[in-house]
Formats: sequence, structure tokens, C-alpha cells
Amino acid sequence: MSSTESPPSRTGEIRHDAVFDRWVLISPARSRRPSDFKSRSPASSSNTNPKPSCAFCAGHERECAPEIFRLPPASTTDWKIRVIENLYPALSRDAEPSPSPVDGLLAAAPGRCAVTGFGFHDVVIETPDHSVRLPDLSLAEVGEVLLAHKQRILQLARLGSIKYVQVFKNYGASAGASMAHSHSQIMGLPLVPPLVSTRLDSMKKFYDMTGKCCLCEAWSEDILVSETAHFFAIVPFAASYPFEVWIVPRDHTNHFHEIDNEKAVDLGGLLKLVLQKLSKQLNDPPYNFMIQTAPLALSSSCAHYTHWFLQIIPHLSVIGGFEIGTGCFINPVFPEDAAMVLREADCSK
Amino acid sequence: MSSTESPPSRTGEIRHDAVFDRWVLISPARSRRPSDFKSRSPASSSNTNPKPSCAFCAGHERECAPEIFRLPPASTTDWKIRVIENLYPALSRDAEPSPSPVDGLLAAAPGRCAVTGFGFHDVVIETPDHSVRLPDLSLAEVGEVLLAHKQRILQLARLGSIKYVQVFKNYGASAGASMAHSHSQIMGLPLVPPLVSTRLDSMKKFYDMTGKCCLCEAWSEDILVSETAHFFAIVPFAASYPFEVWIVPRDHTNHFHEIDNEKAVDLGGLLKLVLQKLSKQLNDPPYNFMIQTAPLALSSSCAHYTHWFLQIIPHLSVIGGFEIGTGCFINPVFPEDAAMVLREADCSK
Repeated sequence: MSSTESPPSRTGEIRHDAVFDRWVLISPARSRRPSDFKSRSPASSSNTNPKPSCAFCAGHERECAPEIFRLPPASTTDWKIRVIENLYPALSRDAEPSPSPVDGLLAAAPGRCAVTGFGFHDVVIETPDHSVRLPDLSLAEVGEVLLAHKQRILQLARLGSIKYVQVFKNYGASAGASMAHSHSQIMGLPLVPPLVSTRLDSMKKFYDMTGKCCLCEAWSEDILVSETAHFFAIVPFAASYPFEVWIVPRDHTNHFHEIDNEKAVDLGGLLKLVLQKLSKQLNDPPYNFMIQTAPLALSSSCAHYTHWFLQIIPHLSVIGGFEIGTGCFINPVFPEDAAMVLREADCSK
Repeated sequence: MSSTESPPSRTGEIRHDAVFDRWVLISPARSRRPSDFKSRSPASSSNTNPKPSCAFCAGHERECAPEIFRLPPASTTDWKIRVIENLYPALSRDAEPSPSPVDGLLAAAPGRCAVTGFGFHDVVIETPDHSVRLPDLSLAEVGEVLLAHKQRILQLARLGSIKYVQVFKNYGASAGASMAHSHSQIMGLPLVPPLVSTRLDSMKKFYDMTGKCCLCEAWSEDILVSETAHFFAIVPFAASYPFEVWIVPRDHTNHFHEIDNEKAVDLGGLLKLVLQKLSKQLNDPPYNFMIQTAPLALSSSCAHYTHWFLQIIPHLSVIGGFEIGTGCFINPVFPEDAAMVLREADCSK
């Protein structure tokens, strides 16, 4: 904002996001250069739970809700990762699961349909050390965090009552994190959420039109951020948010939890690199990441067009009434420009 | 948060929103009493553009983008409302409208579909006075603001190139307002936005199941906030956000712009009252409101089930990775409880 250069003159576009079937207004006229999007409030400056009182730190295990498992499994005070229940869960594992399928209930009470708040809400403490952020871990360690997510998903899948598992991370208070200590969350839901249904429907539409999976087709040099043996990271062609990044497996794979140890380490390295690039170019912005996977039970006909990916959204702009009302987003940075800014970030120390 | 009372123990629910076809986790376990939701950063404390430099104030008209119209029409320095172009528009009125329908383009370039950023982005300056907020106006004056929205929608409708008009207001910096001076915005879009299509599909589903319009059926004593001759205000049964309020016309009406002068004054009074109640009970929170109406061209078969309403969302909680990933919202306040808190607010001075 302080530079005196004049802004680039580039005409806006309305782009279609084939994965979420939504339109995005790419509108650079509202802003300046991509580099002007640095976060004004870096996440590290937010003062949520300082170290002395942090229940996620090693030595404070008793202040937490019950543990589900830890890694390594037999570790005592020297654990690396703990998966625990959320002390303030949004869903209750003790509630009775709804006896009948949701669609039936909907028909019985249209306009007033409610089911019990049954479900699982867990926390993954990604490191015992309060001062370590996820990208500070080694790539193998980031891979272990991803394998902890996988292990918990497999446990929830065995229950039968859970239809979809959402893995996500909120980093920074304004992105929804109430604890500064590095952690992610896992929610097991008794129904397939609306955006997941929309995503599957949209990917089916693309498949029906082209005979191809839209994420298998998403790689493109102009929007590429970085790539590894098994994954590529892009700023999607119709990114809803400035500097949004998707990490996509090269192989057509429906479920995140099919990942093996080798690929988890490979993904860990790319995730670490992308988070480092975002932090470096955008002043340590708050962010969310979400693992966008398929419902646990997936019919074989859907397998052709569903392809999981990891979506990373830095918090750089405010969502207002236009976005809430229409479901259209306004992205002030062309995806090609954002990809270039991220490609250029040198994170080799 | 400071009270010593113990929180109410109430089991969570997963409720279905029949208007947006989405599921909401009503999860009071995450929080305390409804009154604990007061905004920690009242909108009035945000320091965006103080009066001396405000382009929206009377006397600064030349600092604004071109005016479209003012009310009263023949006024000079004594205008009450000005509708102007947005100086930083998200869409450009000078771009060429897309020659062919969007669906055709989509089939031609799946995965890389883009159209020009054609559209309209206007601002409604709701008062010449910098220190006056929308609910400080008289009910007739709030009605005049709504009639200005109507007048601009009718102008855009005559163009033919605009498919949907979104009227919205961002109040407070964290709700997206970059100017503190009271204003709302109007965007004319060359396509029907995704959430509008979803809303119409969902209301059709309800109509097909019940033979009724779901908003005609939405009135209920337990969720009622207030009502007038022509409108009722409720916290919807499956509110996505804490203290979300919908103002619904009693008569089944498709389009907001069908409103007449008498109903606009009636709506103005109810909108003023609801905004006063939210401000009083929740410490002047930032908020968005959106006029949720029908696409400009509506087939007669859709007319049975589309019903416009005004949606008001105070900003009290943070949207995180779970909501972005799933499209499910977590609402920590039962709608019946929120409605009671708002009913009880006495705003007669």
C-alpha cells in the first residue's frame, strides 16, 4: 500500500469453479499489486493462550479432555502427537445416533426437521512444543500428522454411524483458532454435508461433459505453485479467495485416507513448503486448511469423478454481505498472479 | 462471560434449513448463556474514515464516483439519499456483456470457463449525515432507503443483461464496510448466483413435498422477534448464525421490488426495530443484511414457491475451516433462545 507505483490495469473476469460449481468475480480493479495483500495482523501476534497456561503443552495432559491415541503409541512424556476429544465439542459422541436416514426424517417434518447432535469432534495436537508451528516440523513429521488424521478417520469409518469426516486446521484467532498451540481438528458427521454433495454433483457434471475427472485435469503451468513426485500445488483457476492453494494428488484417488506412508511424507513436504511460502509472502497470515475428501461410503459410479484434495485458504479479505447473500466470492488477485508470487518465494534456508 | 451462573445444560441438535437446504449444528455446549454473545468489538468503535475526510458526507459529492440518482430528485445540497457508482467496483458497467448464455460457455470450456467482468456495483448513501446510523433514521426514512433500492433494481431490470440484483449492507469494518458513513450496496449480476439457485431448488423441494411455500409457513410464536401489519421477524428455526434474523413479508411475494410505499414504511419500521434490538442486546455488533429475492426473470411455475425476505446476520462468531469445508454452520445459540432475548429488548425510548 505504501508503494507509489500505479496499479496494473487488468480487466476483471467472472470465472467458473468446476469443483464447487460456483462463480467467482476476479476483480483486480479493487486492489493493488498482489504483494499488497500481506496480512496486517500476522497470526503469530494474536495472544491466545500463552505458554504457561496451555493445556496442549507436554506436561499438561491432565487438563485436556480424554485422549484417543498418541504417537508413538507407547510413548509417555515423550509423545510427538496426541489425538484427544475436544473439550467443547460441537457434536456429542454420547448422543444417540438418529435411527432412520435423514431423508426420511426430512419428509416427515419439512421445515422443522432436527436430529440429535450426535457426532465426533476431536483435536490433533501436532507437537508437544508450544512454540513450534506446523511448517516448523520436518517434512516427515508433517507426514506423521497427516497419518494421525488417517488413523482417526479409519477408526470413525468402522463405526458405521458416521457418513463423512472433515479434517481441518484453523491457524490464528481470526481464522477460528482458540488455542495458539499447533493443532488441527477432526469432525465425524452423521450426514453428508451440503458442500460435499454440491462438490460431488459438480464433479459429476464435469465428468459427464468431458469423460474426465476435473482435478486430474487441473494441473497447468500458469497456476502451478510447486510439485512433488505424488502431488501438485496450484492456485485454482477460479480461486474463491486470494492466494487460495489446492494440493492435489496426481493419481486419481477418492479418499484422503487411502494415503500410504510414502505419499504422506511427500504430501507433508509439499504442505510444509506451501505454508512456508504463504507465511513468507503474506506476513504469516491466519489460514484454514481443509481436507476435501469423499463420503465414507461411495458408490462405484461416483469413483470415476471424485478426487480428494487439500484446500488452503489464507485470511486476507473480509467476507461481506455480497458473498453471504450470493455464494459468489470476490477475489481481488488473479490466480495466475498469486501463483507467480508463491512460485517466486524462496523457502530454502 | 463474567457471570458466575452455570451454563444451561441443553443437548445439541442438527437442524435442517429448508430455505438453503443445509444442516446447522445447534451446539450450546460450546458456549454460555445467549447474553454472553455481546460483541467484543462494537462496530461504532472501528475507526474507518472519520468525518473530516468522508466522501459520503454532504458537501463532498465531487469526491465520489458519478451519481445515478438522488432523493428527493430535485434536491441540491439538501439531499436525503444518493445512489452512486462504486469507486472500486467489483464488476464493470463498461465491459461487454457476455454474448451467449453462460451454460453454453460452460460446455465449451469446462474447467476454464470465464466471462467478462460485466455488471453493476452501486452504493446507496443512506443519509447525508456522517454520525447517523440506519436505525437512527425515522421509520419513514428507512422506508425511503428501501424504496431507493427498489428504484435502482427497476432500472437494472430494464437493461435485460442483468439476471439478478443483490442488495446488501455491510455495517462495521469486520463485516466488510470500508466506509463508516451509513450506506448499502447494490450489485447487478449477469448470471443467477449459485446460492440463489440453491435457495430456489430447496424451496421447490419443500413445495413439492407439502404443496406450500416454506416461508409462508415459517411464522411460529417460539421464534418470533416482532411483527407488523405486513411483515414478521423471526430467528429462523435452523439459523446458521447466532441471532440471525429474517424479516419476511406475510403475503407470498416473489420479488422485493414489488414492494409498495405503504409496505416499505412498514418494513422500514420493523428493520429499524430489529437493528435497535440487536444493537442493544449485543453491544452494537457489526452486521450484514441481504435482501434475498428472486432472479429478475422468473417462470410462472417458480412463482408458487419463491418468497423474498431480508436476512440480517450479526457478526458474533468466527467462520473456520469446518464451515468453509462442509457448508455446515455451527450455531452456539438455540434460535428460540435468541428470539426470546431479542423479544425482551425494550427499544421504546
